[in-house]
This record gives sequence, C-alpha cells and structure tokens, in this order.
Amino acid sequence: MNRDDEHYLRQAIALARTGMERGDGGPFGCVIVKDGQVVGTGNNRVTSTNDPTAHAEVVAIRAACARLGSFQLDGCTVYTSCEPCPMCLGALYWARPARIVYAATRADAADAGFDDSLIYEELPLDPAERRYPMEHHLREEAQQVFAAWKAMGDKVKY
Amino acid sequence: MNRDDEHYLRQAIALARTGMERGDGGPFGCVIVKDGQVVGTGNNRVTSTNDPTAHAEVVAIRAACARLGSFQLDGCTVYTSCEPCPMCLGALYWARPARIVYAATRADAADAGFDDSLIYEELPLDPAERRYPMEHHLREEAQQVFAAWKAMGDKVKY
Repeated sequence: MNRDDEHYLRQAIALARTGMERGDGGPFGCVIVKDGQVVGTGNNRVTSTNDPTAHAEVVAIRAACARLGSFQLDGCTVYTSCEPCPMCLGALYWARPARIVYAATRADAADAGFDDSLIYEELPLDPAERRYPMEHHLREEAQQVFAAWKAMGDKVKY
Repeated sequence: MNRDDEHYLRQAIALARTGMERGDGGPFGCVIVKDGQVVGTGNNRVTSTNDPTAHAEVVAIRAACARLGSFQLDGCTVYTSCEPCPMCLGALYWARPARIVYAATRADAADAGFDDSLIYEELPLDPAERRYPMEHHLREEAQQVFAAWKAMGDKVKY
C-alpha cells in the first residue's frame, strides 16, 4: 500500500465514522479517486433516506459517475471502509473501476450485525432454494424483448 | 402462477420494452406490489442517466421505499422481467420483500450481451482472485468504527 492508498482509505474510514455519528446510517464510507483527484464520496444513508440501496459504495459510485458524466469508472480507484457487500460488488462490476481497496472484511461486518456474509452464502444457490424463494414464468415473452434489443441498431451498450 | 402474478409480470416485461424503445437503457423492467397495489415501478436507466446502479430493480426498490416511507419492502412482491443480477439480488436481500417473481433468466441476459452471468461467477471467488483485483489494508482502524457502532445505544438497525 502506497501513501496515497493509505490517505484515501483512511478518508473512507473517517466518512464511515462521521456518517454513523451523524445518524445517516451504518458505519461505512467510500472514496473514489481518478488521476489523483477525489471524484466521489459516500457514506451509508439507508435508514435516514429510506433507501436500502444507499450503501456507501453505491452513493459514491452515483456521485462519481454524475461528476464524470459517464456510467463507467474508467481508471478510478475505489477505496471503501469495508469489503463490499454483494450489492455493492455487483455495482462495482457494472461501473468497472481499475482497482478496489478495502479495510474491514465481510466477517467484521457480520460481527457488527450486517447481512453481507449471509448474502454471499445465498447468491450461489439455485434461485428456488434461497431464503427468499424465487419463481419464474413467461420466459418466452421476456426473451422477445431481448431479441428486440439484439436487433436494435443504435443502442448504447453498458 | 395466479392471474395477478401474470398481470404484474407482464407489466414488468412491458416496462422493459418501452424503456428500451425510449432509449432509457437496457431492456429490463420491474414492478413492486403490496396488498394489491403497485407501490413502485422501474426500468433500466443506466446509459441515459449515467448511473451504473440504475437497474430496473434498484429504480423500483428506491421508488417503492420512498412511497412506503420505509427502507424495507415488508409484504411486497417484486416482479422483474429478468432474473436479478447480483447487484439487484443483493439490493433485494437488503430490502427483504416477501416474494420475487422473474421472467427471463441470467443465461438469457448473457445471450443478449449483459454481464450478469460473469458477475455470478466472480462473486464466490476469493477477492484477490477476481477480475478486478481487490486488496485490503488498515483493517484494525476500520474495525474500531464497527466497535463504536456496536457500542452505540440509539442506532437504527437495517
């Protein structure tokens, strides 16, 4: 870990603490850096904004993408105070940053009362065997929309 | 599948198509229902809003939670035109609805050019072995914030 990494990761941890102390939500913070500049920050705001998706990483990704005017985090490093939960890791895969650096682990999060580990365990299961049972129907009708997407000429891929 | 399920799932598929045709983003739609009422809808808006997290399910979850004034989807059924990607499935686990019903599968999404399957394959891997390498440092400093969270008396859990 170089000095910049240490600086920004510590900043993410500080955001976790101040957000928690302010009552925004859980103790999680995130800082996104591109070319030596902070382009987005976030802390957990789930309970104060009634938004279960408002995890630190999602908040920071949305802020950074808005600032960069892009739906991709090309060349960015994401510093987060805790190993991303599956939702946030999925969001990071869609945003495609260059690097991800975190501090605490999913085990630490579980120990503090957060469901990250449970969700990691559930994701590889067959959809029908999960804690929240999932069923599927009308597959052919939905496939027709995908066929229309594939046939569409001027689409923006992501 | 009962008649209501068929109705709402078809509505989610219709949102997928109209959103795609309008140029909002990919061909995905979602409808959230509670006690026989639609409480939130969404379609993919990634490319038109520069928000990689603006998948149909995330958009619908945020809308439904705002309307319900809650960060939980207690008693709700989520209808989505495609099997949720790991980001959206994680978001659903955090929102804790009663049921999830989908139409197309992750294989259908992959066939249409979307990364859902890749992300499902990457999630169970060790963080250091993923396509986007992840490193971690300063664990003890982050653990201190979790300890402060655990010691805090008047917190809202989620």
